[in-house]
Amino acid sequence: MVDRQPLPSWNDGPARSAILDLVARVTKEGSAEFVPPAARIATFDNDGTLWCEQPLQIQFFFAFDRVKQLASKDPALSERQPFKAVLERDYNTLFSLGKQALFELAFATHAGVTDEDFVQAATEWLATARHPKFDRLYKECAYRPQVELLGYLRENGFKTYIVSAGGVDFMRAFADEAYGIPREQVIGSSVKLRYDLIDNRVSLVKLPELNSFGDREVKALNIALHIGHRPLLAFGNSDGDLAMMRYTRSGSGARLALLLHHDDAEREAAYDREFRLSPLSEALDKAQDYDITVVSMKKDWNIVF
Amino acid sequence: MVDRQPLPSWNDGPARSAILDLVARVTKEGSAEFVPPAARIATFDNDGTLWCEQPLQIQFFFAFDRVKQLASKDPALSERQPFKAVLERDYNTLFSLGKQALFELAFATHAGVTDEDFVQAATEWLATARHPKFDRLYKECAYRPQVELLGYLRENGFKTYIVSAGGVDFMRAFADEAYGIPREQVIGSSVKLRYDLIDNRVSLVKLPELNSFGDREVKALNIALHIGHRPLLAFGNSDGDLAMMRYTRSGSGARLALLLHHDDAEREAAYDREFRLSPLSEALDKAQDYDITVVSMKKDWNIVF
Repeated sequence: MVDRQPLPSWNDGPARSAILDLVARVTKEGSAEFVPPAARIATFDNDGTLWCEQPLQIQFFFAFDRVKQLASKDPALSERQPFKAVLERDYNTLFSLGKQALFELAFATHAGVTDEDFVQAATEWLATARHPKFDRLYKECAYRPQVELLGYLRENGFKTYIVSAGGVDFMRAFADEAYGIPREQVIGSSVKLRYDLIDNRVSLVKLPELNSFGDREVKALNIALHIGHRPLLAFGNSDGDLAMMRYTRSGSGARLALLLHHDDAEREAAYDREFRLSPLSEALDKAQDYDITVVSMKKDWNIVF
Repeated sequence: MVDRQPLPSWNDGPARSAILDLVARVTKEGSAEFVPPAARIATFDNDGTLWCEQPLQIQFFFAFDRVKQLASKDPALSERQPFKAVLERDYNTLFSLGKQALFELAFATHAGVTDEDFVQAATEWLATARHPKFDRLYKECAYRPQVELLGYLRENGFKTYIVSAGGVDFMRAFADEAYGIPREQVIGSSVKLRYDLIDNRVSLVKLPELNSFGDREVKALNIALHIGHRPLLAFGNSDGDLAMMRYTRSGSGARLALLLHHDDAEREAAYDREFRLSPLSEALDKAQDYDITVVSMKKDWNIVF
């Protein structure tokens, strides 16, 4: 349909070939592997897969700024853990909480805010906040090869989704602008909401209580709940994405599970098992057994941002 | 964009005018009330709003056939309540359970089945099963004026959703064919799923435990979770839809909440408060106070099916 080469930021190699092959197979009308557009679903993890997550997931920087704001109104907060660790950027203490507890802390900083006001606040923050390491707006920390891949899939009739452990409303504040993914195609962790009816007007208010933490097996369950189709393609970068990748890969017909390996210290970061908030270990060690295609940031991408 | 009159199955009157007016206002580029297509969301209840629910919701007939199947393998079942009442079509006993418990019973009849096998079974059942009152396939029990309305909204850039207390997977088996609504735009009640990994293959198995019952306030919460936009238009037919209607109606800008009143004993059914499984009472009594537009099946529709 277009005469340029697809995926120009991807180097020739097994990963790019596997993507082109999957798309060719499922879109070829009349072939046994043809899949109608309605069932062409691709799911992507967000942190570390679509944009960077080093030194830690970007949503935490947003939450930390919120803690600073809250502490300025209530100075006692700065003496209490885990807020003290947040204000002192004491990553060791914070990481020891673990991924879920740290996300719960982040979510709780916006308890009492409506979902609509939250998206507004996140949008405003993202308009100017800059990444401490890459010196660019956070929302410009999306990986160019992935943005190309999302577009290529959509050109071929796929619906592209985010399926992340990150907070759903935070991602909705930038997913359309950064990735071309509309709000209803963002699936993530969520807090419980309270239905408030005051003066004939309804608001939904965030509570400091987790509704769902969208990591590991929950990614597969969330796909079933929100989408109702097993994906044809899933892309992750950590063991938290393994359940989604195996769910996808073990469907019938042509399927592809991709794993981004951050092995590029020069252009982005080199890490896997040692990243305590979201380690990559089993998915890397067992990629071959599980039919997972490993993508090397260093070898497979000719540009990162 | 087309020169035929929109909504030909709708009679001229306040309801049809309110719909045309909303669409004109939110699609007029440059006007203060213009809404970009990404935020043009319309949500519809299913049972009693998009298709009929008398003498009871169609999903129950599917569950009852399943109980019959299970009882043929395990005859002791036919002596135990509530299965006895199901097999004897003892509506009085069944209705006394209440809406949520009856749906939970229906959902539990498919515990142990994967979500994919369930949709397959429901699709097969719907291919031949006929409505006892209207003598037509269940999937042909959709209201023609509503199918027209869904199409009209989509032609004007809306995304159309089902937001129902019915089981999400059951509705996904027919929503595309009956209403043109794809699986991922169906939101409903759900059971918990178990992630099963056997021989390198993942299945998601339905458990006999409720995950979410999508009625009343939960409809608004589900919209926030799954869609992330407050709808411009919501359509319901019972007090179970009131929260969604008030959430929709109280958003800023042009919004419309519609309530279908079944007042047509001749062509379909006449009922409201006395339908124990899903009564219509407050929404009808307070429609004016809540800015809800009542649609009379008898007066506003010139055809039903």
